[in-house]
Amino acid sequence: MTEDGTARLSLNQKTLNRCSLPEVVAECVRTGIPAVGLWREPVREFGLTEAAELVRSNGLRVSSLCRGGFLTADTSEGRAEALRDNRRAIDEAAELGAACLVLVVGGLPNGSRDLAGARERVADALGELAPYAERHGIRLALEALHPMYCADRAVLSTLEQALDLAEPFPESQVGVVVDTFHVWWDPKLFEQIERAGTRIASFQVCDWLTPLPADVLLGRGMMGDGHIDFPPIREAVHRAGYTGDTEVEIFNEEVWSTPSDEVVDTMIERYLRLT
Amino acid sequence: MTEDGTARLSLNQKTLNRCSLPEVVAECVRTGIPAVGLWREPVREFGLTEAAELVRSNGLRVSSLCRGGFLTADTSEGRAEALRDNRRAIDEAAELGAACLVLVVGGLPNGSRDLAGARERVADALGELAPYAERHGIRLALEALHPMYCADRAVLSTLEQALDLAEPFPESQVGVVVDTFHVWWDPKLFEQIERAGTRIASFQVCDWLTPLPADVLLGRGMMGDGHIDFPPIREAVHRAGYTGDTEVEIFNEEVWSTPSDEVVDTMIERYLRLT
Repeated sequence: MTEDGTARLSLNQKTLNRCSLPEVVAECVRTGIPAVGLWREPVREFGLTEAAELVRSNGLRVSSLCRGGFLTADTSEGRAEALRDNRRAIDEAAELGAACLVLVVGGLPNGSRDLAGARERVADALGELAPYAERHGIRLALEALHPMYCADRAVLSTLEQALDLAEPFPESQVGVVVDTFHVWWDPKLFEQIERAGTRIASFQVCDWLTPLPADVLLGRGMMGDGHIDFPPIREAVHRAGYTGDTEVEIFNEEVWSTPSDEVVDTMIERYLRLT
Repeated sequence: MTEDGTARLSLNQKTLNRCSLPEVVAECVRTGIPAVGLWREPVREFGLTEAAELVRSNGLRVSSLCRGGFLTADTSEGRAEALRDNRRAIDEAAELGAACLVLVVGGLPNGSRDLAGARERVADALGELAPYAERHGIRLALEALHPMYCADRAVLSTLEQALDLAEPFPESQVGVVVDTFHVWWDPKLFEQIERAGTRIASFQVCDWLTPLPADVLLGRGMMGDGHIDFPPIREAVHRAGYTGDTEVEIFNEEVWSTPSDEVVDTMIERYLRLT
């Protein structure tokens, strides 16, 4: 159980996917949650300046902005467009005062089977983006996604690989995300969390459910509903030196169709008990 | 492209899931495929002695028997029953003259979140089974399954972990399976294939399709239909010293509803071109 109540809890807005940004903020205010995780699309819809003002005036931290990345394009146009979009994402993160910009690096380009090549292009693009991010005061956070997304979403598949990729950069420029859903199965998880140390830029939690739903993007469950043993992971992340927020990010049709106050109350209860 | 045609090709009977064992054997005979991969349930249905006689009289090798394992039970009864069943599987593999018995180690016991404990129990059980297998002339083959099956099917998730688990045992007792579907995403794949060397006991191929089907057990596709780049993996496996068969094992509703001769003809064409 956490010792400081909800002082380090963050509500990722995707957990309340059907709510507007003001509704998400209102739930934080109602329950005393001090931080939110934001996504670019709904922020843009609401207005970037307006979103920044809304969270600031309500005293909320922005624990992360999701997401930059998608850096695997194998054409020069695709690559240039991805870099442009990532610079915009860094600008947005800066305006929001986000603790980091989460990068989902992208899958194989259409029709390509060159996994090693895609991984190299991610490393190259990171070299271009990291200095830009630092100049704007934004830390990039590399997110290893579960290996089942390797083909179509992220060729970055383990925490170890994320740390290898981050290693050439200062910690303040490039950190890593530890997301329980993506890494809980990894036999090297605890060793790699220890290795990560204060390079951990974001800690995200949700549970692994079985059977996986037909759309595997929606298998992220409420903590306690699935197979993940949270306390040892939380302890390892804290022991490694992470002092940031624990962000609850759930993609789940059942959660999304439940009234938001009910979801948030359950989330707080589970967070206090399990993570 | 392989240099020896289909001399090292094996048809896993699951690829023709709706066919009887004699029909699978007939397809091998028709096309000159010299080996089959067998499964315990259909073999038992047909009769163990009869199955052994059928493959032998048709001059086929048995490249593997699937499967033993499911060694994660956390009750003494469950554990004893699993060991009994695995000894039976070893006996069956011996009677069939199989090159190895594939072990799918099992997922988390019902309601358990103790992943580390489940993994330890697999190691313990292996210690009991390996000498028995050796006495019966059967090599155990540890199969790392894709991490998406960690909760419900196999807590053994990477080739590296399989090799760590196998390491205390002589190669002749405990080998590992390299199955492209399960390991293609792994950033350490080529390093670990090299490490495996002649501990590789079985090489299985099929493709990774997207989107994953609703039943993720059925996402195994025909080589060439998905995202896996086979030639580098095949070359690495051969360079490591593997001289056994390449077994095609496809679980896929569309393949299963295609006439078997068509499936086998396509399989041979793809095998010769891609693996």
